[in-house]
Amino acid sequence: MLTAAEILERAVSGERRWLARAVTLIEHRRAGAALAKLEVRRRGEPGAPQVIGLTGPPGAGKSTFADRLVTEARAAGKRVAVVAVDPSSPFSGGAILGDRIRMERHTGDDGVYVRSLSSRGHLGGLSTATAEVVDLLDACGFDLIVVETVGVGQSELGVIEVADTAVVVLTPESGDTVQTMKAGLLEIADVFVVNKADRPGADRLARELRRSVELTENTGWRTPVHTASALEKQGIDQVLASATAHMDWCCGEGREAWRRRRGDAQVRLFLDLVAERARRDALSGLGESREAALRSFALSPHAAMEEL
Amino acid sequence: MLTAAEILERAVSGERRWLARAVTLIEHRRAGAALAKLEVRRRGEPGAPQVIGLTGPPGAGKSTFADRLVTEARAAGKRVAVVAVDPSSPFSGGAILGDRIRMERHTGDDGVYVRSLSSRGHLGGLSTATAEVVDLLDACGFDLIVVETVGVGQSELGVIEVADTAVVVLTPESGDTVQTMKAGLLEIADVFVVNKADRPGADRLARELRRSVELTENTGWRTPVHTASALEKQGIDQVLASATAHMDWCCGEGREAWRRRRGDAQVRLFLDLVAERARRDALSGLGESREAALRSFALSPHAAMEEL
Repeated sequence: MLTAAEILERAVSGERRWLARAVTLIEHRRAGAALAKLEVRRRGEPGAPQVIGLTGPPGAGKSTFADRLVTEARAAGKRVAVVAVDPSSPFSGGAILGDRIRMERHTGDDGVYVRSLSSRGHLGGLSTATAEVVDLLDACGFDLIVVETVGVGQSELGVIEVADTAVVVLTPESGDTVQTMKAGLLEIADVFVVNKADRPGADRLARELRRSVELTENTGWRTPVHTASALEKQGIDQVLASATAHMDWCCGEGREAWRRRRGDAQVRLFLDLVAERARRDALSGLGESREAALRSFALSPHAAMEEL
Repeated sequence: MLTAAEILERAVSGERRWLARAVTLIEHRRAGAALAKLEVRRRGEPGAPQVIGLTGPPGAGKSTFADRLVTEARAAGKRVAVVAVDPSSPFSGGAILGDRIRMERHTGDDGVYVRSLSSRGHLGGLSTATAEVVDLLDACGFDLIVVETVGVGQSELGVIEVADTAVVVLTPESGDTVQTMKAGLLEIADVFVVNKADRPGADRLARELRRSVELTENTGWRTPVHTASALEKQGIDQVLASATAHMDWCCGEGREAWRRRRGDAQVRLFLDLVAERARRDALSGLGESREAALRSFALSPHAAMEEL
């Protein structure tokens, strides 16, 4: 039985099946302190990997963009990993699974690694797990890491926070979602895409997004809003060009603003880890008889915390 | 300047304006250890308050049900509190605000207290805050506490977990939402309502819900699925009757199953409190210079946690 540290070490040394084991360890939140030893490159420095996040409702066409990102990076000789994250319940893994199957045309290519991550009941730990998997893939020497997630709810945006550049793919039908999640979307998106641009409402949504972007606090990067039709292969190049332009900006004139945002994300990840650890150790710290008292309403949750 | 303990004490003694202050303290997560001293009744025991949760997408018609619950309870001489919780971003508080305004016909009635709670950036703490407000209202002697929340996402279901009886109000348009959140909805709902039953798709959704309920693990309570038209005043009585029947079941033959579920919810609340506290204290524990190292990628989040 190998320890977590040994499994991570073998994964980093380049063995694919150990990489799979290591990701599973992280998914199950069992990699622990061994992760502190990973040699992660400083994001934004020369040689560090580029992490692109892709999010949007199911059926928005994210996989077309993921596929193109992979193909282009491979043509440039880069090693690429795709992490498909499904924050929703285990009962609705359909969309992600579909994306994986479409990705299969890259199997056999040793420079591509595709992996899905699901919450499997570990609610809340998924953005932490994603950040850890990205660190692992970084340590494994991947040049481009694409994090794809289905949906634009709070949890999905939390997951995408790990990315250097976040591409949010919407469709004309996303109107209500955009209204509900507006603040979160504007904060996270570095590139907006209104896909299925031939459908009614696409121009209106694009106009609304542009107006909202203009009203948002300016860090120097004005989030571009593209319309595209992935099916007709229209507008995809512009989206990829914008993602590249954003990364250039991050390493150049936008460096300070971008590092502030990444620094905030690092702090949030640290706080998530601390909370996760505290949560894990709390019940054993409380003891069995006091837990029984808590369950039977003889001890209030607050009193239990004070005891702890 | 009064302490948190003093404010809570005055709220419990019956002064309305101190109750408002106390709820604000909790909303801002500043009531702390003083909450451990509240005299909360043991739920399900004679004399304990009944907590009914109402959730569903915006416009599903929840407020009609909340209004009827309040009116009927007042007619029976009970003191009623309504807590309207908005887990979404501060930019989308519309629906809840509408409900509050409609509730205003109960203002001036000393037996009714209506209050809204929002996350105000304290993401994640909202279900904890709601549970604490319910405890406070319990200590204040309210007989019926209605917790209303907009939406059926993960955070909304977390908030509703505080209820003894959860009523989930959907419309024929909720199809996609139901698919995405199916597992969570089935776990939380004690009563399903398909409102706006005159619209196409209502019967289909009701049938699907009934089938799903049948496939769900049986704890002895078979979640009823009602169709209703709140506008036409049809089906509302049946929904209220089901809510009452569920509460009777909880205090009677379903007592053990229900107490297990409430016990699990108490444990989750305890874990949430512990995590919240750990998160709050983590950065000061780490120290300023190490925080700077974390922000600049010189210290990894995992290494920071190990230091802590």
